[in-house]
Amino acid sequence: MQGAGIDAMLNSLADIAPDLGRFAVEFPYGDILCRPGLDLKSREIATVAALTALGNAPVQLNGHISMALNVGCTREEIVEVITQMAVYAGFPAALNGMAVAKEVFAAIDRERAMQQ
Amino acid sequence: MQGAGIDAMLNSLADIAPDLGRFAVEFPYGDILCRPGLDLKSREIATVAALTALGNAPVQLNGHISMALNVGCTREEIVEVITQMAVYAGFPAALNGMAVAKEVFAAIDRERAMQQ
Amino acid sequence: MQGAGIDAMLNSLADIAPDLGRFAVEFPYGDILCRPGLDLKSREIATVAALTALGNAPVQLNGHISMALNVGCTREEIVEVITQMAVYAGFPAALNGMAVAKEVFAAIDRERAMQQ
Amino acid sequence: MQGAGIDAMLNSLADIAPDLGRFAVEFPYGDILCRPGLDLKSREIATVAALTALGNAPVQLNGHISMALNVGCTREEIVEVITQMAVYAGFPAALNGMAVAKEVFAAIDRERAMQQ
Amino acid sequence: MQGAGIDAMLNSLADIAPDLGRFAVEFPYGDILCRPGLDLKSREIATVAALTALGNAPVQLNGHISMALNVGCTREEIVEVITQMAVYAGFPAALNGMAVAKEVFAAIDRERAMQQ
Amino acid sequence: MQGAGIDAMLNSLADIAPDLGRFAVEFPYGDILCRPGLDLKSREIATVAALTALGNAPVQLNGHISMALNVGCTREEIVEVITQMAVYAGFPAALNGMAVAKEVFAAIDRERAMQQ
Repeated sequence: MQGAGIDAMLNSLADIAPDLGRFAVEFPYGDILCRPGLDLKSREIATVAALTALGNAPVQLNGHISMALNVGCTREEIVEVITQMAVYAGFPAALNGMAVAKEVFAAIDRERAMQQ
Repeated sequence: MQGAGIDAMLNSLADIAPDLGRFAVEFPYGDILCRPGLDLKSREIATVAALTALGNAPVQLNGHISMALNVGCTREEIVEVITQMAVYAGFPAALNGMAVAKEVFAAIDRERAMQQ
Repeated sequence: MQGAGIDAMLNSLADIAPDLGRFAVEFPYGDILCRPGLDLKSREIATVAALTALGNAPVQLNGHISMALNVGCTREEIVEVITQMAVYAGFPAALNGMAVAKEVFAAIDRERAMQQ
Repeated sequence: MQGAGIDAMLNSLADIAPDLGRFAVEFPYGDILCRPGLDLKSREIATVAALTALGNAPVQLNGHISMALNVGCTREEIVEVITQMAVYAGFPAALNGMAVAKEVFAAIDRERAMQQ
Repeated sequence: MQGAGIDAMLNSLADIAPDLGRFAVEFPYGDILCRPGLDLKSREIATVAALTALGNAPVQLNGHISMALNVGCTREEIVEVITQMAVYAGFPAALNGMAVAKEVFAAIDRERAMQQ
Repeated sequence: MQGAGIDAMLNSLADIAPDLGRFAVEFPYGDILCRPGLDLKSREIATVAALTALGNAPVQLNGHISMALNVGCTREEIVEVITQMAVYAGFPAALNGMAVAKEVFAAIDRERAMQQ
């Protein structure tokens, strides 16, 4: 998830499970994503693929599509990753993942339109 | 899956469901993987991630780890993708995916040793 | 999905991933559902069963319950398929699938009432 | 699910699939949960863990978190069970489970505040 | 599962969890499969579809493919159900399901050859 | 997993992904299982439940059934947890989990018989 998404998650967990919030930042961001063996763009492609295939985490998929855009993925690349999941996880998973991507892209477009 | 894996799949299906074999080649390889919007290396990273996360297809994961190596992924990059899945699909999924990668790497090393 | 559901899906994908929409029609409807080896009613029973068991695609389950009715399934048969999934995928999956069936049946009843 | 949740489920199924409702009470409550080999608190811990890990049944998880509280689990224990699922099913499953727990706890607090 | 499969399951559970064995017969066979609202052939089509899609129970899928044949499904119909699951659960699930069907058909052929 | 299982996992990962091994010990054992809010026996009940329900990790389920016995669960309690999963994840998941428990119990009995 990108910065805003992480802050929202931490705020949401602050009064019930702050340690889960801490683990959910420290392990992925402190231990994994910063490892040198794989570039950040490839890591986000992997995460978008996995969350689309698993299909149980639309909020997190939303955050990682945003993050993928932030680390250099194009919208077309994200659309291709999600489309490809039809092969490995079936069409419903791909269609539901694409619906999340559509929301993310639309939210960015709305925000840009408002800033002009 | 790489060439040998695809041939094995088609042979295995020839007497029971040749059309499933045909679809399993035509749709991923004819329709999806050759699309221009995403490079083949990123596509294999996405597939290795998804199959590790789903955890229900070790044979196909084996084939796609081989294919990832063939299209330019390093072993280290594959290890990183699978390790990262611990975050999104849990440690058992990552550990089982890594066991498949270990088999693939060992099979390649054995084959190389025999060729020398 | 029945006609209206397919059109909605294609419209929704038109500006982001029209090719996924095309694949999602061509592969199931062009390649699979029209095959002679299994009647369409049995095919929809299989799909309603699978989507109930997987539990990750309520929108698609909704569409396929409608389609099952259109190709000759009775409401009672659909209720039986979903109930049976409690055995193989657990009660939560069956209960969530039944909630989708209830929505589909109610929508049809509302539409019929309005047409009178 | 606790009493109110069970009644809501039975009412919801009454006109479409009353037998699924009957099975969903008789099998878990009549056959399983009352068995002597495991105390009810441990049984609810097991169910909260499984529904968090599976991630496909937020309504049922809501009901079982309530029931866990009713049979003696503390909020802290429920938070720990859900947190632990990050290890075995990944962070998205744990975060989504915790969001359900947060709703349950907030609903109880609101109800208590209204009763005073 | 057909008769031999059920006996094997009950024998396997006899010394560890005989009640699970009893439930696994009583609930599906005593409560569900005998219900009048859906014919037994359609029920087995639904189960083969669901177990192929879930992908976590090859032993049970094996038993239900045998049972489907016993209640009137042709091999072609079973092949079609499993092929169709590529659409809804992805190709790996369909390919793994087909491998189980291939085993079942081969075992029947071997048995027939030995009886002649 | 109990001590022997952890050592086997670390050895298996030593030459391919030692950091995954380190994370797979540090996060569950260093960060989670030692937390004060839930006793270790309840934690193992939660893990056995989740791994049975997910059904994708028989090796890890084997290790956690051993660990559950080591921290005070009786065999009967483990059998009850796994049986209960039939309600929430379906009979195939419960039957497959019980097959793992049977292996663990038999291995312990064999080891005890050899020590006498």
